[in-house]
Amino acid sequence: MPKGAKTAAVLQSILADLVNLSLQSKQAHWNVRGPFFRPLHEMFDEMTDQYREWYDDVAERARALGAPADGRASTIVATSKVEELPAGELADRQAVSLMTAAVEGAASRMREALGPLGEQDPVTQDLVIGIVAGLEKQAWMLRVQAT
Amino acid sequence: MPKGAKTAAVLQSILADLVNLSLQSKQAHWNVRGPFFRPLHEMFDEMTDQYREWYDDVAERARALGAPADGRASTIVATSKVEELPAGELADRQAVSLMTAAVEGAASRMREALGPLGEQDPVTQDLVIGIVAGLEKQAWMLRVQAT
Amino acid sequence: MPKGAKTAAVLQSILADLVNLSLQSKQAHWNVRGPFFRPLHEMFDEMTDQYREWYDDVAERARALGAPADGRASTIVATSKVEELPAGELADRQAVSLMTAAVEGAASRMREALGPLGEQDPVTQDLVIGIVAGLEKQAWMLRVQAT
Amino acid sequence: MPKGAKTAAVLQSILADLVNLSLQSKQAHWNVRGPFFRPLHEMFDEMTDQYREWYDDVAERARALGAPADGRASTIVATSKVEELPAGELADRQAVSLMTAAVEGAASRMREALGPLGEQDPVTQDLVIGIVAGLEKQAWMLRVQAT
Amino acid sequence: MPKGAKTAAVLQSILADLVNLSLQSKQAHWNVRGPFFRPLHEMFDEMTDQYREWYDDVAERARALGAPADGRASTIVATSKVEELPAGELADRQAVSLMTAAVEGAASRMREALGPLGEQDPVTQDLVIGIVAGLEKQAWMLRVQAT
Amino acid sequence: MPKGAKTAAVLQSILADLVNLSLQSKQAHWNVRGPFFRPLHEMFDEMTDQYREWYDDVAERARALGAPADGRASTIVATSKVEELPAGELADRQAVSLMTAAVEGAASRMREALGPLGEQDPVTQDLVIGIVAGLEKQAWMLRVQAT
Amino acid sequence: MPKGAKTAAVLQSILADLVNLSLQSKQAHWNVRGPFFRPLHEMFDEMTDQYREWYDDVAERARALGAPADGRASTIVATSKVEELPAGELADRQAVSLMTAAVEGAASRMREALGPLGEQDPVTQDLVIGIVAGLEKQAWMLRVQAT
Amino acid sequence: MPKGAKTAAVLQSILADLVNLSLQSKQAHWNVRGPFFRPLHEMFDEMTDQYREWYDDVAERARALGAPADGRASTIVATSKVEELPAGELADRQAVSLMTAAVEGAASRMREALGPLGEQDPVTQDLVIGIVAGLEKQAWMLRVQAT
Amino acid sequence: MPKGAKTAAVLQSILADLVNLSLQSKQAHWNVRGPFFRPLHEMFDEMTDQYREWYDDVAERARALGAPADGRASTIVATSKVEELPAGELADRQAVSLMTAAVEGAASRMREALGPLGEQDPVTQDLVIGIVAGLEKQAWMLRVQAT
Amino acid sequence: MPKGAKTAAVLQSILADLVNLSLQSKQAHWNVRGPFFRPLHEMFDEMTDQYREWYDDVAERARALGAPADGRASTIVATSKVEELPAGELADRQAVSLMTAAVEGAASRMREALGPLGEQDPVTQDLVIGIVAGLEKQAWMLRVQAT
Amino acid sequence: MPKGAKTAAVLQSILADLVNLSLQSKQAHWNVRGPFFRPLHEMFDEMTDQYREWYDDVAERARALGAPADGRASTIVATSKVEELPAGELADRQAVSLMTAAVEGAASRMREALGPLGEQDPVTQDLVIGIVAGLEKQAWMLRVQAT
Amino acid sequence: MPKGAKTAAVLQSILADLVNLSLQSKQAHWNVRGPFFRPLHEMFDEMTDQYREWYDDVAERARALGAPADGRASTIVATSKVEELPAGELADRQAVSLMTAAVEGAASRMREALGPLGEQDPVTQDLVIGIVAGLEKQAWMLRVQAT
Repeated sequence: MPKGAKTAAVLQSILADLVNLSLQSKQAHWNVRGPFFRPLHEMFDEMTDQYREWYDDVAERARALGAPADGRASTIVATSKVEELPAGELADRQAVSLMTAAVEGAASRMREALGPLGEQDPVTQDLVIGIVAGLEKQAWMLRVQAT
Repeated sequence: MPKGAKTAAVLQSILADLVNLSLQSKQAHWNVRGPFFRPLHEMFDEMTDQYREWYDDVAERARALGAPADGRASTIVATSKVEELPAGELADRQAVSLMTAAVEGAASRMREALGPLGEQDPVTQDLVIGIVAGLEKQAWMLRVQAT
Repeated sequence: MPKGAKTAAVLQSILADLVNLSLQSKQAHWNVRGPFFRPLHEMFDEMTDQYREWYDDVAERARALGAPADGRASTIVATSKVEELPAGELADRQAVSLMTAAVEGAASRMREALGPLGEQDPVTQDLVIGIVAGLEKQAWMLRVQAT
Repeated sequence: MPKGAKTAAVLQSILADLVNLSLQSKQAHWNVRGPFFRPLHEMFDEMTDQYREWYDDVAERARALGAPADGRASTIVATSKVEELPAGELADRQAVSLMTAAVEGAASRMREALGPLGEQDPVTQDLVIGIVAGLEKQAWMLRVQAT
Repeated sequence: MPKGAKTAAVLQSILADLVNLSLQSKQAHWNVRGPFFRPLHEMFDEMTDQYREWYDDVAERARALGAPADGRASTIVATSKVEELPAGELADRQAVSLMTAAVEGAASRMREALGPLGEQDPVTQDLVIGIVAGLEKQAWMLRVQAT
Repeated sequence: MPKGAKTAAVLQSILADLVNLSLQSKQAHWNVRGPFFRPLHEMFDEMTDQYREWYDDVAERARALGAPADGRASTIVATSKVEELPAGELADRQAVSLMTAAVEGAASRMREALGPLGEQDPVTQDLVIGIVAGLEKQAWMLRVQAT
Repeated sequence: MPKGAKTAAVLQSILADLVNLSLQSKQAHWNVRGPFFRPLHEMFDEMTDQYREWYDDVAERARALGAPADGRASTIVATSKVEELPAGELADRQAVSLMTAAVEGAASRMREALGPLGEQDPVTQDLVIGIVAGLEKQAWMLRVQAT
Repeated sequence: MPKGAKTAAVLQSILADLVNLSLQSKQAHWNVRGPFFRPLHEMFDEMTDQYREWYDDVAERARALGAPADGRASTIVATSKVEELPAGELADRQAVSLMTAAVEGAASRMREALGPLGEQDPVTQDLVIGIVAGLEKQAWMLRVQAT
Repeated sequence: MPKGAKTAAVLQSILADLVNLSLQSKQAHWNVRGPFFRPLHEMFDEMTDQYREWYDDVAERARALGAPADGRASTIVATSKVEELPAGELADRQAVSLMTAAVEGAASRMREALGPLGEQDPVTQDLVIGIVAGLEKQAWMLRVQAT
Repeated sequence: MPKGAKTAAVLQSILADLVNLSLQSKQAHWNVRGPFFRPLHEMFDEMTDQYREWYDDVAERARALGAPADGRASTIVATSKVEELPAGELADRQAVSLMTAAVEGAASRMREALGPLGEQDPVTQDLVIGIVAGLEKQAWMLRVQAT
Repeated sequence: MPKGAKTAAVLQSILADLVNLSLQSKQAHWNVRGPFFRPLHEMFDEMTDQYREWYDDVAERARALGAPADGRASTIVATSKVEELPAGELADRQAVSLMTAAVEGAASRMREALGPLGEQDPVTQDLVIGIVAGLEKQAWMLRVQAT
Repeated sequence: MPKGAKTAAVLQSILADLVNLSLQSKQAHWNVRGPFFRPLHEMFDEMTDQYREWYDDVAERARALGAPADGRASTIVATSKVEELPAGELADRQAVSLMTAAVEGAASRMREALGPLGEQDPVTQDLVIGIVAGLEKQAWMLRVQAT
């Protein structure tokens, strides 16, 4: 079973992004304000639930490959490429806009990893395909709210 | 309704500790090894669920008081007093020992806040009393495993 | 067991406000109009459910203290300090604004009762603390929609 | 779609009676005493649940017909024909007797409305038929307890 | 049992409209855009569920009367009087407006059938009354969003 | 409230038929044999559940009208017009054929009662309409199996 | 497999008694009156559910032994030894008294069959033991209400 | 964390009373007789469920404070102040009367402990407040049955 | 993210086929007759549920790729390659035969698209693979019934 | 506690037969073909679920008696008396016929063991009685399909 | 119905043992310590649930036989033969060892009663057989942890 | 649709391994002993549930491809490459070690099949990828218990 360091490194970078997204969507869940508060408050909470489920799968896939998993706050800060939301309250349209960018960025980075993963480990690739599908669905639902 | 800055500051520091604990217990959930893997893997997951529920309540209490809530990774790293677990696999007894210390430390800090909170805002105090009760129960369940 | 008339009187006035709030939020649930109809229609219904649960607890606490409970319409009209909504359809922003005022007013009155209750009967105080926490959470969710 | 004022007026008067019945049955739920306390305490609570479900349907039917719905306490007091229970504790047999009268009266008023409704709007008539069926079933269950 | 061709023909035309409405509301569920995306995306999905349940009942009522049921796409296109939505994305306010018209039209056509049905077959009439009630409730919820 | 003897007599005769049908469908559930045993064994059981629910509603409607309800075996034998199945095992096609006749007969008798009931008591009529709808649906499902 | 006629005959007589008991307890469920209406109305309904479950098991055991099962109304009338309740309303204490006698009689008859069944077929005996246990529990709950 | 012997001693005495109450309410659940058997049989069972849940919380709170918990029968006998019910059957009114006294006594003892607990450990006090609230609610429901 | 027109076109053609299949299987669900009515009536309903779930996923995938989704009846008629069932009742064996052909045809067309999709967008390919698996399982279950 | 080797040996032989039956019924579940595919496919699956539940009970009873349990494939092949189904597809009537023989054979062997078990260990006998009851019920349901 | 004093006495002694076991297993649930804390804490809780269910059945069987049931603490202390656990914390292996002895002792005493019960009352014997089966299963699960 | 013999042969060999693993994990579930009994007893049972679900999917995929499925005990013995556990009790650490080897071996064999399957049939490959992911997760959870 080829448990190469490459696959583990990809999984670790995805883990960092997904943990970070879960903290960002909770941040938006709490701090959003404006007339669209209620549907966005709900939507950001559902997104958090999805990120938590996905990053648990990613971390446990890394463990199945014999690698450790690192989801500590300091690791997220040091390695995640997801841009943090600003502190304080967020106007509803602003929250949508910032989360769209965060989700699209993460989806894009993971999509780029699909090709290499397909060569290294189709089992890991299949897991990441499912997450990319979910992120692109979230991105659609956010994106159309700005139009 | 006295929504003083003091109460909000206490809630923000509790939020940082609880988010951090949730990331630490997931870290332990993934990386624990040794013959006690299975019961600890389960226990750390249940602890994560509790931290997530508690910190959502804490953040929304801050919002009810008119303050923002900050649960971003960088804020956790900068302000939480919970010591991070080391990277990599964790032997089962070591995981129990480190998590005991983390939980007892957080419980102790929150317990010290109960007195001031009682004077500032009994509603917030009541919320924190419930969390201290939960943390002290977790601490018992961890502590007796080391004896 | 000090079942003083004071505690019973506080409970009765809270009961009147909560029954009234439940009728107001149903009123808003039915008569709201405007593009925000759907999320508000849902939110006002959930608020009604909470008021109903809370006022049942309040009335049964009065009964446990040996006092009767009075939730009849004429008593609500005669004693509740919650301002009634106007008859007829309510524009969505107007509904939010009026319900915010109603909820904040009730929360404020109950918060003022916490101190005296703590001296008279900590068991009743604990019940009212939980209701104040809930009302202040509702007030946050309404208030930010107007910003 | 004939949304005549007559149908709306009938619905509004039914709404007032059903909201009032829900407050009366809760009143009885709380204040009943005597050896039959427990089965009556349960029965009055179930009746409250039914009134709440029915009056929500009635109010939303009025809205579907383009009319507003008015369930405010002052409107109940001013327009409902349901006689209020006396304040204070209610002996169990007395509670049964008073609630029987209240339910039979409301059922009778609604039954009289069925004929006119059938001519104005069979959709509204069908809704009211269902409520009359429920009220007459409640009346049977109360009535036989007094025999 | 009078299973006249008239009743069957009414049921078949209702079936065509309801199947068509279910396809239209799914179309709106997918293609809606704008800041109200989320509550509308949910509402159109719930409407689809209702149409599916209703048209199954209608088709099976036709079968109970000995007639076949025809819900094929070509039959819908040839016989349904529901106007199709335009292809492509739909702005949120536009989606509300178009669906309001579609629902009100269908409700109106079915309401007109109630009188004849009452003479032909009260069992079928009772089924259609329930569907008209549901459509008129949907129409209310859509209509007030445009005000 | 016109609780005429006519309505009660109609309800009592419907009660006898429905109790009898429930015993017949159980009889068929147990004694059917042949290659179609399994789907018929299931179908006859579901029919029994429906009869039980319907006859409880019918009996309680009679009680709501002030009349007693009589579902005793001797009353069923003396008054029900449902023909009993023969004793012993039933070939599958035979079971379908006999139950079709029993269901169609009962549906036909109840349908004839709808007119008079509509004049005596529309609330009772509405209940019986629902049962006729259910019986005619059962009859369809049985009838097509013989074709 | 000794599927003797004796065992089948015992099962058939038990079946007749249990079907009859289910019709009697429903009869009492509907027609009971008096201040104890509500708890008895509930209790008689639960008893009916138990009889239905038990007699289905008994009939299917007869089928497993190769014998037919006969639960038709005419068979119940002709063979069951359970005394029928009188027609019409039943005073609450009278209903308890009559049902106690009916249940105790049936339990006694089945208990007498246990010995012979143990010799003929321990599998059938085990089923009947469970039913006797249930009947004797019902008898206790009825009997103590008369003391 | 002040885990003083005083708090532990209070918890241990509450534990003894609650375990004893759970055994008493089961005793009443089994041995009650009289026309009110059924509602009391149910009520005493629900009370047992509550005692079991409460004493588990109390014992685990003692453990969280570092003290052992002692719920053994001999400890209950030696230390609980709850008076035992007499052996044998209990008339329904007698059961209500004896359980009222037992519940009121326990509630009174725990209420007296609230003040000292508030000074020693607000987390423990909060737990006991919840139990006192529950006991006083039970006492109301029992007490009014004797009036 | 390559959201090429090719992938969107493939998804649109799959959408048309799946919507059409859902209408065909409902058509068969209603109009099937013959001794195998019941198991087929159930099977065609379960197939409808699967088509509805699958085509919702397909349409939302198109949306995630930035394309609109078109599930309108006229589009189905104009573009779907699924052959429509004949109008009227369907003999059971005929229904099995026609649905087998429809399902096998759709599965075959989608399987041919897998190769191109794998090159254009592995995320979409993964979705379609799941649908092909489901269709081929349905085809097996239909096919063996004709043998 | 007499944990004789005889009882353990009986349990081991029953275990082998039940594991084998579970593999046979799955085999039939997969490979059955013919117009009765669907009801048989379901029935064989339910039978598998029952065998799995029963053999778990049997194995754990052996463990409770201090003996090991052996459910390995090689042990099944070497010791089970259940005749294996032929490889490949099975016509529906053939599947029924072969499974009837397998179930009847196993039921017969276990029934013969009941007498000796009653003398060795009534607790084990009671478990096996329940399994024989279940097998004989399965045998009835299969057998009547061939008639 | 032979409700001899012997059977009642056996049930009373079983009741005392089972109530005592439920208190012992809760005692172990709370006070166990050591690395095996978590799985034992869970196991002792599940055992408590089983004892509670069993002793309720035993007490109600005594009631069905006309005897009272005595589960008061003083009766447990005076008559149960289950040895009490020592006060204070229990090392995990010690807890397993002591509970094994307690369970095996109770199972052994009940097994000895099976013979006499079979002669006195097979219905009671059947109940006790089920409890012995459960206790012997618990004993196995405890015993193998010491090996 | 290329339903080549190669794909079917791969599926058949996977089926044999998964059925065998399900029997091995049950064997371990029953016969494990030692202080880790409880968590392992649970884990092996959950593994069995997973194998059963996976092999049903594999067998039905073979059927969808037109091939038969063979899960008979003799086929398992003749073709599965999973090494059987030894008879009799298994020490806990030994059980972990043997099951780790069995799971890793099966995962490895299936992983090798992924490449060829991808060329023959991507639908089957996708199914097997999911099973490999599950097996590798199980292997991690077992493996770390030995460290």
